[in-house]
Amino acid sequence: MKNAIEREIPENIVWYDTVINYATPFEKEPTGRKIAPLLKQVKPSENKLVNSIEELIQKAGLKTGMTISFHHHFRDGDYILNSIVEKIAQMGIKDITIVPSSLSNIHESLVEHIKNGVITGIHTSGIRGRLAEAISNGLMEKPIVIRSHGGRARAIEAGEIKIDVAFLGVPSCDEYGNASGKGANTICGSLGYAKVDAAYADQVVLITDDLVAYPNYPASISQTDVDYVIKVDAVGDPSGIASGATRFTKNPKELLIAQYASKLIVNSPYFKEGFSFQTGSGGASLAVTRFIKAEMKSKNIKARFALGGITKPMVQMHEEGLIEHLFDVQSFDLVACESIMKNPNHHEIDASLYANPHNKGCVANQLDIVILSALEIDVDFNVNVITGSDGVIRGASGGHSDTAAASKLSIIVAPLIRGRIPTVVDGVNTVITPGETVDVVVTDRGIAINPKRTDLLEIFKNTDLPIFTIEELKEKAQKIVGKAKPIAYLEKIVGIVEYRDGSIIDVIKQVK
Amino acid sequence: MKNAIEREIPENIVWYDTVINYATPFEKEPTGRKIAPLLKQVKPSENKLVNSIEELIQKAGLKTGMTISFHHHFRDGDYILNSIVEKIAQMGIKDITIVPSSLSNIHESLVEHIKNGVITGIHTSGIRGRLAEAISNGLMEKPIVIRSHGGRARAIEAGEIKIDVAFLGVPSCDEYGNASGKGANTICGSLGYAKVDAAYADQVVLITDDLVAYPNYPASISQTDVDYVIKVDAVGDPSGIASGATRFTKNPKELLIAQYASKLIVNSPYFKEGFSFQTGSGGASLAVTRFIKAEMKSKNIKARFALGGITKPMVQMHEEGLIEHLFDVQSFDLVACESIMKNPNHHEIDASLYANPHNKGCVANQLDIVILSALEIDVDFNVNVITGSDGVIRGASGGHSDTAAASKLSIIVAPLIRGRIPTVVDGVNTVITPGETVDVVVTDRGIAINPKRTDLLEIFKNTDLPIFTIEELKEKAQKIVGKAKPIAYLEKIVGIVEYRDGSIIDVIKQVK
Repeated sequence: MKNAIEREIPENIVWYDTVINYATPFEKEPTGRKIAPLLKQVKPSENKLVNSIEELIQKAGLKTGMTISFHHHFRDGDYILNSIVEKIAQMGIKDITIVPSSLSNIHESLVEHIKNGVITGIHTSGIRGRLAEAISNGLMEKPIVIRSHGGRARAIEAGEIKIDVAFLGVPSCDEYGNASGKGANTICGSLGYAKVDAAYADQVVLITDDLVAYPNYPASISQTDVDYVIKVDAVGDPSGIASGATRFTKNPKELLIAQYASKLIVNSPYFKEGFSFQTGSGGASLAVTRFIKAEMKSKNIKARFALGGITKPMVQMHEEGLIEHLFDVQSFDLVACESIMKNPNHHEIDASLYANPHNKGCVANQLDIVILSALEIDVDFNVNVITGSDGVIRGASGGHSDTAAASKLSIIVAPLIRGRIPTVVDGVNTVITPGETVDVVVTDRGIAINPKRTDLLEIFKNTDLPIFTIEELKEKAQKIVGKAKPIAYLEKIVGIVEYRDGSIIDVIKQVK
Repeated sequence: MKNAIEREIPENIVWYDTVINYATPFEKEPTGRKIAPLLKQVKPSENKLVNSIEELIQKAGLKTGMTISFHHHFRDGDYILNSIVEKIAQMGIKDITIVPSSLSNIHESLVEHIKNGVITGIHTSGIRGRLAEAISNGLMEKPIVIRSHGGRARAIEAGEIKIDVAFLGVPSCDEYGNASGKGANTICGSLGYAKVDAAYADQVVLITDDLVAYPNYPASISQTDVDYVIKVDAVGDPSGIASGATRFTKNPKELLIAQYASKLIVNSPYFKEGFSFQTGSGGASLAVTRFIKAEMKSKNIKARFALGGITKPMVQMHEEGLIEHLFDVQSFDLVACESIMKNPNHHEIDASLYANPHNKGCVANQLDIVILSALEIDVDFNVNVITGSDGVIRGASGGHSDTAAASKLSIIVAPLIRGRIPTVVDGVNTVITPGETVDVVVTDRGIAINPKRTDLLEIFKNTDLPIFTIEELKEKAQKIVGKAKPIAYLEKIVGIVEYRDGSIIDVIKQVK
């Protein structure tokens, strides 16, 4: 069975009662009601504090076969996921599905716990390193499920991901469960992904290394959502959680891409007083932010908001008055972490408000311009950000497909070739973002505008920007590095790529 | 059938599938899940703005027989409820149940709409004036249901109140539904009651007279909960919504009561560094705040938080560093309204976080001391704040029973007699707050400690405070004004008093 973008999708997938194939970005309408949390009485005399992880797991009622969640705000400094899974293994609990908002290199110990049967399912946005390689090589019986950040929030609210216990590490909290992204030992800023888990999981437990006096306010996670609290020695490694470094690229390719992209933006109808944008933390993306900033200053234009993962350059623009509001689902660096704690218009938002397509309107719906990266782009403008040129999983869906679909102008920035590997290709290995939601591809060797954006083609027909068709870009790449050899896959499906609306847009097969 | 406090409760009540009689304050455990809002897709291109109230009602799908809600943050300045009900009547819609968080004198036009069949059900916390009198005289076929603020939040979350459409007036909002308690024309401060309706109603519509640019942030109500937005000429009368006046009582009775109460508090084990309290806006209550403030200063004691309806004296204490956090479900005066907009530790909380007994722990559960008023108190310490000495409805349940049950020390302040009417009586007309949750009654003629509080009796046995038994207080009152004549009631039940947990604690009968 092929879906609307010609990807072969199996009729039966273990995770789904009914497999719905991807059709168009907004075709799948939700029905019914959100899933609702359990009702519970906590009497005035009752205490939520527990003394050991084992007691925590017992009180939360965790049993073989259940689903547990984690957040990835601690990035590569996270101690929580590994220590909880380790304890679960020690207690003899098996067949657990984990649904973290994302996974990092630090989580490679999961390989052992998959082998020993403790972990049998993974739903995540991103996955990298030895764990991702092992999965691509067929480690798991059940395929992993890749979701976008907005899609994960949607799936949780729709009850498609049912979280039995959410294990949420927090930089600080009080005994009653009010948690903050800043503590005495660590700071992670926004707890935007964790907020969704806290609101919908059956059991919510907070793990902190900074237990403070009640009330720990303002709170990112509220006492009304929290069942148990535990104090541990350390929730993570501060240097892995947030670094102060912002990479200012000197790579000439990246600078050229950024120059093209910012020129395109500045000459688009969206660059005007009160516009909004999202940029990532990659080199080209950060450089775009710098170039746009200069244009905004010279033309005296201010942005109403910036969205997404927030970085130091955005905070600086906010503090200089160039961006009125920052909507922060994830604070990417130390400057962003500190800013969200002190700047009243630097707002913490949860992943549903950020980009869920099935609430009453996410912030991404109001977004004018988004700059997104890519591992591969194909001639139908489909984008891959999850598998490498060898077919191995090594990326993250993130907010890519969410903001591409919801924004008015989505721009993909990527070098035309990486080493000996072409970026613009006939068909991407894996589709995360469908081409019909991509407006422009900007490479160091030229720009391609999606033919369906006739308005943009008209605007840029007499520009000095190097505009080509996407086929021309593909051919340029081929001329330099030749055509990439097709990847040898086995039949086994190791990953499912769910589109933000819950339909299946692609699958990932085992590599040979 | 009599409940645990000997009140006759009918076995069948139109609003309930099963009538559960009040037993003890925390006996009724919730089961199952919260009710969940509808899933909905709002596409990026879609607009929430409508042009007329009629279009709003049509788009929200309002039909005969449905339930609609309002909030009472606009108090006696509210234009929303009357204008919506008027339009509903014009459109020929009938048999509507209204579930406002409370009703004021300004809503007396409801009498006409009850007579003409437009409104057939009322659930509220408070009700006064001509409307309350008419209901006490048998105006409605179905009894009204009186709930506490925490109980209303509980009932909504439990799906016992199912709101088809929430009509929420807001001082400002943007076209996408981000609303604030401050606007160009009006200010109401916290939107704590409205937040619950916004989170759970099937259709949420915002009505504003100050439509501002996106994003209207920080937002009390979020775009993800809002279906439609309309701009009208005026949402209310600013002078009726919030006044700057705080009454400093000179009434010697009230001052004496306040003196006794504060002496009691100061000598209780709860008055220590980091304590918490809630006081109301009545004369004696405000005077208690003043007296405690002086004691806090002289003993160098600071409160960790104050809770509830927030008033100017609390804001002053907060700004002077005497109260660390203010938790505000309703801003009682202009000073409080302005403070919540500017003071980062003056927090807006919704009614569920405030006092709902069936979430994972409300703020009231953390409350040390609460000062509450009363119309009547009986020898079992039961308190009436809803019906007058003539049996006619003229009050509000408010947070009375919530905070009495959840706090560590609940103190009722009231004059022993009012005019020729005793306050301490054999049996109150109507029980809002059960005696077992009341710790102390303070009158101008003496103090009674609930016998179950043996710890307090021990502490105060050698005090110079005028401690009596509650029977002695009752007899004092009788000696002065005689025994009150029993009220002549008819058989018809005009009101149901639901305890915060959903059990039935009392009924109100039609007056003769």
